[in-house]
Amino acid sequence: MIDHQRRDLLLGALIVPLAAGLPMARAATDMPMPPHEIPGMDADMAKVPWVRNEEIAMLVYPGLTVMDLIGPHSMFGAMMGAKIHIVSKTLDPVTSDAGLTLIPTATFDTCPKDLTVLFAPGGTDGTLAAATDPQTLAFMADRGARADYITSVCSGSLILGAAGLLKGYQATSHWSCRDALAGFGAIPVDARVVHDRNRITGAGVTAGLDFGLEMVAMLRDRTYAECTQLMGEYDPHPPFNAGSMKTAPANVKKAMIELVADFSRKAQALATASKV
Amino acid sequence: MIDHQRRDLLLGALIVPLAAGLPMARAATDMPMPPHEIPGMDADMAKVPWVRNEEIAMLVYPGLTVMDLIGPHSMFGAMMGAKIHIVSKTLDPVTSDAGLTLIPTATFDTCPKDLTVLFAPGGTDGTLAAATDPQTLAFMADRGARADYITSVCSGSLILGAAGLLKGYQATSHWSCRDALAGFGAIPVDARVVHDRNRITGAGVTAGLDFGLEMVAMLRDRTYAECTQLMGEYDPHPPFNAGSMKTAPANVKKAMIELVADFSRKAQALATASKV
Repeated sequence: MIDHQRRDLLLGALIVPLAAGLPMARAATDMPMPPHEIPGMDADMAKVPWVRNEEIAMLVYPGLTVMDLIGPHSMFGAMMGAKIHIVSKTLDPVTSDAGLTLIPTATFDTCPKDLTVLFAPGGTDGTLAAATDPQTLAFMADRGARADYITSVCSGSLILGAAGLLKGYQATSHWSCRDALAGFGAIPVDARVVHDRNRITGAGVTAGLDFGLEMVAMLRDRTYAECTQLMGEYDPHPPFNAGSMKTAPANVKKAMIELVADFSRKAQALATASKV
Repeated sequence: MIDHQRRDLLLGALIVPLAAGLPMARAATDMPMPPHEIPGMDADMAKVPWVRNEEIAMLVYPGLTVMDLIGPHSMFGAMMGAKIHIVSKTLDPVTSDAGLTLIPTATFDTCPKDLTVLFAPGGTDGTLAAATDPQTLAFMADRGARADYITSVCSGSLILGAAGLLKGYQATSHWSCRDALAGFGAIPVDARVVHDRNRITGAGVTAGLDFGLEMVAMLRDRTYAECTQLMGEYDPHPPFNAGSMKTAPANVKKAMIELVADFSRKAQALATASKV
């Protein structure tokens, strides 16, 4: 953890900054003031586990789709006391498929050994590269052997699969590569968020918001997740109804299937060749 | 623009990486192959404006809420040929309220003068600081004087307002500071995305996805936006129904209103004191 995270995550990402002016009686001890102690709060809020100390590792690699990362990050970041590690092979800046550049906070060596949540975002060629990189797979397999939850959004599940973490588990992915998961011994499921024991996987890109909220509800409780949802004003109103293979117009589906055909083939080949 | 953006944005963020293996006959000229030229594509897709050359400037500043930025970025990034500039006072890394660190690609000086889209994300204390920073306001007022669209998500509209860009316009913001917009001469509207002439503003945080898709439909067309929605699998299924003041449970609303009361007061004071 670097200093800005200790400071900024003190009360969580969505809740704390908005509460920046609250009396910070606990600031000196790094402990935030739980909402039920704030004057005027309902006593029933005292049951909510406002502060815990989860260790969350979010993998990043060149070519990731940054929305796969930030959807869950925006939900995890609201969990007071949780520590989020942005983990990569080195601390060098990492550039996403759309050209956004992030700076990791931990390496495969410095990331905590025992994690509450291990998370992998997706992408396309960058994801295929990560899913065939020995150091990345060794890191995922090692932390995955002990993590409380092993998770992904979008094609990030290819990385979990390649690391041997989905064998015998139901899982999902972006529609373009979901079926490939069978090559890793997983059972592909067409759903927004798939739970199978401690494997929690989300569908493509924006499914990370639904995934993230479900994780907050599991790690804290439903009321905490509802507070997070209200702060993130997650009341979606998509202007069109083309977000899934079940609803998109036929010409849109046909064009996009064709456009991703090469990636779909590569993902399938990767999984088929997998020895896990 | 830096090199990785020229390369990675060549075919857009959502569409191109997934199409990384397509025959790249136009790569040498920096022009992607539009889907209607790809073998097997429907002829009716030829009407879609696949490639244009929008110049999009997305402001970043210390303490921004990174989801406010990345929701729209994930949609803009799918627009083939568009250039996205991540703009800040300097090229120094910028850390979000939740501790995620980004690297800008342009400064107030190097950002193109004539923009298709000028965009401001929100946050809390960092946003109030940006909305009172003379250099930031001068940049926003200058580019806003000529931009085709002047836009924001979440409390980013406080920055537009402070720069004098919302006077006489309907606009929205995060629920915690929407009413404050009146202090800048704007007309606050409780809606997910508000269009008033060329001012397009989104509500809190996750509203950036709906905002972004509406922008893609305006800048390209509906079919392009539907392709973007399918690639981003934007078919939201929030696990709870607490994302707005209309739907959240009473105890959740009360706790969160209390928690953000200080920020709400500060935003109101900023707007009331504004001379714009």
